[in-house]
Amino acid sequence: MHISGRRREVDGRLEWDDRFTDLEEYLKIARAAQAARIDAVFLADHPVLYRNVTEPPKHTLDPLIILSMILAAVPDIGGIYTASTTLNHPYNLARRLQSLNWLSKGRVGWNVVATWNPDVAENYGNQPLGDHASRYSQADEATDVVRRLWQSWDQGGEGDHTLRGQPIDHDGEYFSIKGPLTVPNAPFGPPVICQAGASSQGIALGGTHADIIYAVAHSKKGTLAYRQELLAAATKAGRSDPTIRILPGLRVITGSTSEEVARKAAAEDEATPVDGPRAERLAEQLSLNFGQFDPDAPLVIETLKPGGSLPQGFFRALVDLVEEENLSFRQVLQRRAENHRLVVGTPNEIADDIETWWRSGAVDGFTFNPHSVGEDLSLILEEVVPILQSRGLYPREYEDATLRERYDLEGRPRTTVQEKRLVDA
Amino acid sequence: MHISGRRREVDGRLEWDDRFTDLEEYLKIARAAQAARIDAVFLADHPVLYRNVTEPPKHTLDPLIILSMILAAVPDIGGIYTASTTLNHPYNLARRLQSLNWLSKGRVGWNVVATWNPDVAENYGNQPLGDHASRYSQADEATDVVRRLWQSWDQGGEGDHTLRGQPIDHDGEYFSIKGPLTVPNAPFGPPVICQAGASSQGIALGGTHADIIYAVAHSKKGTLAYRQELLAAATKAGRSDPTIRILPGLRVITGSTSEEVARKAAAEDEATPVDGPRAERLAEQLSLNFGQFDPDAPLVIETLKPGGSLPQGFFRALVDLVEEENLSFRQVLQRRAENHRLVVGTPNEIADDIETWWRSGAVDGFTFNPHSVGEDLSLILEEVVPILQSRGLYPREYEDATLRERYDLEGRPRTTVQEKRLVDA
Repeated sequence: MHISGRRREVDGRLEWDDRFTDLEEYLKIARAAQAARIDAVFLADHPVLYRNVTEPPKHTLDPLIILSMILAAVPDIGGIYTASTTLNHPYNLARRLQSLNWLSKGRVGWNVVATWNPDVAENYGNQPLGDHASRYSQADEATDVVRRLWQSWDQGGEGDHTLRGQPIDHDGEYFSIKGPLTVPNAPFGPPVICQAGASSQGIALGGTHADIIYAVAHSKKGTLAYRQELLAAATKAGRSDPTIRILPGLRVITGSTSEEVARKAAAEDEATPVDGPRAERLAEQLSLNFGQFDPDAPLVIETLKPGGSLPQGFFRALVDLVEEENLSFRQVLQRRAENHRLVVGTPNEIADDIETWWRSGAVDGFTFNPHSVGEDLSLILEEVVPILQSRGLYPREYEDATLRERYDLEGRPRTTVQEKRLVDA
Repeated sequence: MHISGRRREVDGRLEWDDRFTDLEEYLKIARAAQAARIDAVFLADHPVLYRNVTEPPKHTLDPLIILSMILAAVPDIGGIYTASTTLNHPYNLARRLQSLNWLSKGRVGWNVVATWNPDVAENYGNQPLGDHASRYSQADEATDVVRRLWQSWDQGGEGDHTLRGQPIDHDGEYFSIKGPLTVPNAPFGPPVICQAGASSQGIALGGTHADIIYAVAHSKKGTLAYRQELLAAATKAGRSDPTIRILPGLRVITGSTSEEVARKAAAEDEATPVDGPRAERLAEQLSLNFGQFDPDAPLVIETLKPGGSLPQGFFRALVDLVEEENLSFRQVLQRRAENHRLVVGTPNEIADDIETWWRSGAVDGFTFNPHSVGEDLSLILEEVVPILQSRGLYPREYEDATLRERYDLEGRPRTTVQEKRLVDA
């Protein structure tokens, strides 16, 4: 979830909408998600203001603060905190996350990211970014040491509460950390580890550490292949019988009737012509010469090259889709395939899509990226989720207190096997 | 406030009390403080486990998480977050504090500390501590840049909401930070800046930046002199007509009757004999040879030397007290003068002490350090505070929403002058 500082014209003057500075706005979304029995809210992050002043401010407030406040004020709901290993010291990360894990009684996850954006780095100028490989190697070391700090107290036997921390004496390439963590191990397991990388180093990182993957997924076939690569990386990293839940982003345009859906989708298409600024940006992201190709001819895979402003996982998923469905540039633009997958339909059609994807085995659920917070989000929560519940695909009540139990992950404290979960927000 | 993981013997086995991992325990204290109309709770920090395993774990959970959760769940109450400029990047500090400032609507303060403990530093081993002078010079630069980031958006005129961030382009000795902050300036003013240092660099830092000083104060005369030094440092740093509130720590042994007070105090004295481990530690802190002096002879000021494990502010306040009252080692031990000032008495006597100190002009209020949370804290909140209220010295309701207004500080958005406040917790 995020709430942007939208810009709007009021009496001929641009103003920004300051809802994003109001706790009540975040709690409203979290409470609506809780009422629909959503597992967790996801908070992305990007600690820099976009340079383009026509864009609204985004990711402005720190997600750690927002999430701590949500978990204090809203019961049941879990929360995923995005934090960069490039910009945060592992001891601070480990301590804050384990503190929130205890105080929320197991409702927290950490989305591990390695900062790539040089604009962000300029706010932390005395900590220069390395290249892609060293950023991932630092992320791997940081995640490893955080996980060891989360288990740095003695493991007493049952009923033995005489636990004390023990040093971990980590002396690595990037960090030197004695330990122990000031916070005891949590009996209900450490925070859930989430990750989204799709480059080869990203897959290695996810395979080594992740419980949950927030992949970009446009093609079932591509996602099934991606799952195999992840599991192979996990096995290579020494995890036996690894459990990794894949919960890709899902963007939805929906409405109560087919007519309403068609109207909303047409308005979106109209706002993004093949000669407009979004199209120009898309061409850059695919390394195509804008204006030098037929927007209605099927794209030739070999002409699409990464290296533009599109992260590798998004590029890869887009190429999988173009290959599978033989799409033109105009179709890619209308599908907004440079972002998470877009599904357009009535609540019943959205539910059908979710069920089909889930039954294919490609995914374990989805992470909603509501197209417009406050509009489509309420349709998803109040119409799509109940359909999934009536089909027996999604629970009607919270059956487990901790995220680790809800996602049926390794390290959970119980032994019963749960149904897989479908929907996240 | 803090909740320790006390160790206790149960059935012949040592156990730790895990109340400190339970959010409800923190909320209980904050709600009690709110009911008594206390301005703010104070969260200290010390991110390392004590090496001595007979000491209970302390400062284990991260105070930023605890405070965010308290401010989300408890209305009115303010909160002071202790964070080290040695262990946290200024951009992260500025962003987290300004986020919490917005979401709590002005109820947050930052207690600036520079880490001195090499045990803490070993948990951040790739960020070695400098000497005392360079730690304070780094703290000064960090605090300065945090404050500039808090004001890094355009200051529009009234009704002008077209604000945008502007770079601060900071390129200093320790940090290089482009800015702007991702978070807009708060119209009700930035977070309150708190500080506690009493060395010459500490006083310079407090004079330059602080709104509130958490000093150690055993002597009114010493505290009045300290206030003059602070104001001189503020003037030297270019603040005209500076407002700095001094809110020293106050420890209380109290009970409903004189007999109960005497019984509690006697039990304390009995637990700290002049040949016991606390006495040995006190001798070390004063650079005295334990066992080589008469514990009942007045101490000779010239023989007391800093350099032991006592921070400079605590050492200085202790010496002021010995000088003023001509105390023996035994008396220093019983007054526990190596810590914040201890007052022993019935609620009425405690209120008298607070009023006398306040009327002297030495202090603007106090920060309670309850001797035993859950016992003396409730006596303070339910008996001492009402006496102060009945004397017209403390407000019966929250009259101001923000901490900046409550303490009547520079940068507050209103112009009316308030009564000074007396009690903090």
